[in-house]
Amino acid sequence: MSSVYFDHNATTRIDDAVLDAMLPYFQQEFGNASSRHGYGIQARRAIDQARRQVAEAVGVQPVQVIFTSGGSEANNLFIRGAADNLKPGHLFISAIEHPCVLKPAQALSRRSGEPWNLQQFCVDPAGRVDVEAAGLALQQHPPRLVSVMLANNETGVIQNVAAIAEMARVHGAYIHTDAIQGLGKIPVDFAALNVHAMTLSAHKINGPKGAAALIVDKRLLLKPLIYGGGHENGLRSGTENVPAIVGFGVACSLAQARTAETTHHVSGLRDRLETGLIGMGATIFGREATRIPNTCYFALPEIEGDTLVVKLDKAGFAVAAGAACSSVNPGQSHVLGAMQVDPMLARCAVRVSLGRDNTMQQIDDFLHATQRIVTELKQMSSLSFQ
Amino acid sequence: MSSVYFDHNATTRIDDAVLDAMLPYFQQEFGNASSRHGYGIQARRAIDQARRQVAEAVGVQPVQVIFTSGGSEANNLFIRGAADNLKPGHLFISAIEHPCVLKPAQALSRRSGEPWNLQQFCVDPAGRVDVEAAGLALQQHPPRLVSVMLANNETGVIQNVAAIAEMARVHGAYIHTDAIQGLGKIPVDFAALNVHAMTLSAHKINGPKGAAALIVDKRLLLKPLIYGGGHENGLRSGTENVPAIVGFGVACSLAQARTAETTHHVSGLRDRLETGLIGMGATIFGREATRIPNTCYFALPEIEGDTLVVKLDKAGFAVAAGAACSSVNPGQSHVLGAMQVDPMLARCAVRVSLGRDNTMQQIDDFLHATQRIVTELKQMSSLSFQ
Repeated sequence: MSSVYFDHNATTRIDDAVLDAMLPYFQQEFGNASSRHGYGIQARRAIDQARRQVAEAVGVQPVQVIFTSGGSEANNLFIRGAADNLKPGHLFISAIEHPCVLKPAQALSRRSGEPWNLQQFCVDPAGRVDVEAAGLALQQHPPRLVSVMLANNETGVIQNVAAIAEMARVHGAYIHTDAIQGLGKIPVDFAALNVHAMTLSAHKINGPKGAAALIVDKRLLLKPLIYGGGHENGLRSGTENVPAIVGFGVACSLAQARTAETTHHVSGLRDRLETGLIGMGATIFGREATRIPNTCYFALPEIEGDTLVVKLDKAGFAVAAGAACSSVNPGQSHVLGAMQVDPMLARCAVRVSLGRDNTMQQIDDFLHATQRIVTELKQMSSLSFQ
Repeated sequence: MSSVYFDHNATTRIDDAVLDAMLPYFQQEFGNASSRHGYGIQARRAIDQARRQVAEAVGVQPVQVIFTSGGSEANNLFIRGAADNLKPGHLFISAIEHPCVLKPAQALSRRSGEPWNLQQFCVDPAGRVDVEAAGLALQQHPPRLVSVMLANNETGVIQNVAAIAEMARVHGAYIHTDAIQGLGKIPVDFAALNVHAMTLSAHKINGPKGAAALIVDKRLLLKPLIYGGGHENGLRSGTENVPAIVGFGVACSLAQARTAETTHHVSGLRDRLETGLIGMGATIFGREATRIPNTCYFALPEIEGDTLVVKLDKAGFAVAAGAACSSVNPGQSHVLGAMQVDPMLARCAVRVSLGRDNTMQQIDDFLHATQRIVTELKQMSSLSFQ
């Protein structure tokens, strides 16, 4: 592919340094980390090192890192793993969570036997969880479990997790945050977020697919999703994916070291992009809120998002209509729905998510291409009515 | 590492052709397969191709392949996923299943609410599930779910899965087989095994860690372990690990094409190895049964397995004491326990599991090294009693 890649919230290209670190573990140091011979010992050491790197990136101890195969697994491990150790009660999530938090929560609320009572925090039109309303809801229905994402994958809007955590803790609830879209784009500190558990993923930070982590407070009791040989302190059995875990460790170190630089670079690109789009009449979703610096979620009125994505792809720009992770289930974005965006406008939503390799020239080219496509589509539209 | 690798049942080196196929998906074709732009479309095509390769290797349709992150996840997906769609009843497994079948089954039998009734098929001293006894047990406790592995990871003993499946089907049960240790070593055909579900894993067949599959019959209803974006027909959400899945596909094609050649090669090596070990007074576990051709599980009386593994490692040979996957939980092998092996002899168990890259020279060198170590250990032992 040689298209300009503007879809970094969906996945990212593996960094050269990350791939270099991974390569020896495919064919030379290929051992099973549970083996007691030299190959196994080398693999175990590599995992230990990666665990330290991941821990350091978010300010925790290595023992707090539970490696999983991906962010969806880590989020499910919290939701189901914590719920299965508690008496069912109120489970709160925000209305804009990723499906891999929303769906396991719904499954708990729909199960036979002892279902959980699922409650959703509403968001304001800028895509922020309404903290005051959340506090009232928690008073009314004292929670056992709460999950609120750090930054939304579609809008990029950053949530006040620490404030919600404080209120949740009053009721003795366990609080989790999906920080996947935050890491590498804003500083992410486990203690400052005041949570009991946090999800991170490698492939959103120029690391490999196949590695992620649930970071846990030692007071949080979980049941495993995957039982077996007792890996990851008994919380996630299965032969460790050593190359991916090694890559995740390096990617975390790089992300941590580069957060400020990345922020500076991509926020400059985004400002230019949004100025250009607004000049074309675009609405920018979540613009009134504090956002991660790489994400621009916009709608050009009467230009359907799906159509624009396909046209832009042909023109050499890879962008998303809604969240990539849910594009197997097409339909209106539940995030924009929660923000009370007019459904006609929501159908026009397109997400550009930038990365450190993107350039100002690419932004300018993108704006030109978008302008050209919009003009063409409007001409076609007016012709069809003649 | 430059040690001779004799631990292929724990994990394997990635084949050159497999790694070559994977490499483009780290940095060039790195898209999220759910994305609608070119990067995503390329990733989706690569997964579709791998799905066809995996399906073809075991004689099923691509739609029957559910990709997971590993064999443990696939086995858990069957056990828990099938159980959660049924009224609790009798769940049968063999007494020699891998912990990633045994432990989720135990979890079902110990859960509060409506526990399952876990029953185990016993094995004979050669490590074979006693089919006649199994038939009687199934009559006595009509099953809803049955899981019996195709080949045991420790002994290599092949089980008569088809016969047990036939008996299980009489009662309307769903039957699953963990075929991880069979693939690439013996022909594996889903229809011939007469099962509703089968687990395969990439990293045991010179493929990457991080990819595996549950092969399913369309009549089997499962609930997911991991909920979210609806990937894998809604049965396994999470961004697909494209490079690992691509590698799995190629590894399956290679394994299928090479099974006969591999069998011929490694069985010749194993015959020589076992003749040599028997000459030293070794017991070979499961030798009276039909085994996969690469596995030799032996004990030299009075030579502790752990000690021998460490000494052999220093001498340049990587072998296992018991199963690598459970070596995080040391203790006596439950497989040898089920075979009624004298615990004193079981403590001496060492597994050599061969691969296609191993040579006759390595076997001879291994036998010399073992003889030397045994002589040394016996001398030390006799000295300590003087």
